[in-house]
Amino acid sequence: MTDSSLFRGVLAPVLTPFDADLNPDPKRFTAHARWLLDDGCTGLAPFGTTGEALSLGLSERQRLLDGLIESGIEARALMPGTGLCAIPDTVALTRHAVGLGCGGVMMLPPFYYKGMSDDGLFAYFANVIERVADSRLKVYLYHIPPQAVVGFSVELVGRLIEAFPGTVVGLKDSSGDWANTNALLKAFPGFATLSGSEVTLLANLRGGGAGCITATGNVNARRIRRVFDRWHEEDAEALQAEVTAIRERIQSVPMIPMLKRIVAHYRGDESWSRIRPPFLPLDAGTAQRVIASLEGDFGFELPALREAA
Amino acid sequence: MTDSSLFRGVLAPVLTPFDADLNPDPKRFTAHARWLLDDGCTGLAPFGTTGEALSLGLSERQRLLDGLIESGIEARALMPGTGLCAIPDTVALTRHAVGLGCGGVMMLPPFYYKGMSDDGLFAYFANVIERVADSRLKVYLYHIPPQAVVGFSVELVGRLIEAFPGTVVGLKDSSGDWANTNALLKAFPGFATLSGSEVTLLANLRGGGAGCITATGNVNARRIRRVFDRWHEEDAEALQAEVTAIRERIQSVPMIPMLKRIVAHYRGDESWSRIRPPFLPLDAGTAQRVIASLEGDFGFELPALREAA
Repeated sequence: MTDSSLFRGVLAPVLTPFDADLNPDPKRFTAHARWLLDDGCTGLAPFGTTGEALSLGLSERQRLLDGLIESGIEARALMPGTGLCAIPDTVALTRHAVGLGCGGVMMLPPFYYKGMSDDGLFAYFANVIERVADSRLKVYLYHIPPQAVVGFSVELVGRLIEAFPGTVVGLKDSSGDWANTNALLKAFPGFATLSGSEVTLLANLRGGGAGCITATGNVNARRIRRVFDRWHEEDAEALQAEVTAIRERIQSVPMIPMLKRIVAHYRGDESWSRIRPPFLPLDAGTAQRVIASLEGDFGFELPALREAA
Repeated sequence: MTDSSLFRGVLAPVLTPFDADLNPDPKRFTAHARWLLDDGCTGLAPFGTTGEALSLGLSERQRLLDGLIESGIEARALMPGTGLCAIPDTVALTRHAVGLGCGGVMMLPPFYYKGMSDDGLFAYFANVIERVADSRLKVYLYHIPPQAVVGFSVELVGRLIEAFPGTVVGLKDSSGDWANTNALLKAFPGFATLSGSEVTLLANLRGGGAGCITATGNVNARRIRRVFDRWHEEDAEALQAEVTAIRERIQSVPMIPMLKRIVAHYRGDESWSRIRPPFLPLDAGTAQRVIASLEGDFGFELPALREAA
């Protein structure tokens, strides 16, 4: 059985708002995070790919995380991304998160050098864990080969679990490859395997998985949460089909800029459409068309976003 | 004509030594850098891929660079790598380098997110240059798709040169694709196009290029420099053929660990073989075989390394 302290359910990788100078906007960030928990998220993964984590500086991440905790969000509901390319930077972010009491951290592999061996990647994580040197540390590996290129083989995951039991406790699988998620579920029962998208949420839960961490959780957590809550009920397939269709509609255009446009639209707050380069804002007309089709085809519940305006 | 203040010749991306705890060893780093300038390098590019830059923390890079300057190395001979994924981190490293008077900086594109548009990459560099806000800034773009995956199209380079004349002044082409280097040379005369390897040094110079920044400059600068000094002489082809053959021998095994083994061997200093994960040290037997073959086949001048022992 999975340890009850582990993350389960639906987590959103919190979008990061920027001010007019493209600096992070901690007030809007915290308000959005709090709203996500009210809207159905069981936890939050700030500083994922969707949160433009790799566009944020080290100290920016630390200050944004501090702000979440100061606002009263329970630290154990937070799984911040702390994985960078270099051991000391990854250790600094991780120690900061663990020190605040975060329930876990989500860690990318060192993603600059390509073609590294599993032995080399294992040595990297061993060194990070040794340097963090805190028994409270819970690592969720972040497998996202479409962006990071470098990923975790099933064998490497097994070695890390075996070497660091109770520390390497889960994985977010954003490979987009169900066969990989399924292999992890079968190989490591009790390990918290989270899908990187709600599209495989039902399959994940049926396979003994822990749920999902999904970009669209930023705007559609309520419906996705229903799939999680009712996965053993008769309507589960229908609920899954609907959130899948909504996801596909949203990612028919560049997804991160689109998610920011959705939040901007329903909050009546254009500042939410800002994004740091190399991303660019999605043009407003395209975004409006997608929003209209979401409302028309799915009677979309996005107006819920208004509540946090 | 190329601006005489720009880098020309043979630059080495300085190897980074580590102590027993895998922390950077500033004393050995500085000693090696000084020796490289004595051995024929016309400039140094600390914090390139070969220097394991992406395994170093932000503050580690800053302290190592400070150490080079404090040792008396002329700042204008230094082109440190300052490109990270996030604008604020890249700006912080770049401002530090410019503030020290470095002759230039070598800047990776933001390399985490894949499939970004040229418009997005242009916006990234525009934002970085605007934030650095220093007329002394000289940017050398670092094009290395085998590692970064994200690269610079010839069109993007042209847009950056046009928008930031006197600031975007050069490029290191580590694509391994001569057609790309050649296209840059033809498109942008006066722009400092540097080959990412000495294998194309002669071709680069004949095409009006500025020289090379090459990993093997760490152990073979003296011969590579001869190609640069004598590129218009009759023996240029023969000199080029020899350095190419040496390069190929060294990169017949994992190159960065091999270069560290070579330095360790000739300095009689095993600590030089240390490397940060995800890299792993090359096994000593393999390294010995390569070193023996370099000596046997090329009467290799590596004993010159002993001078800095």
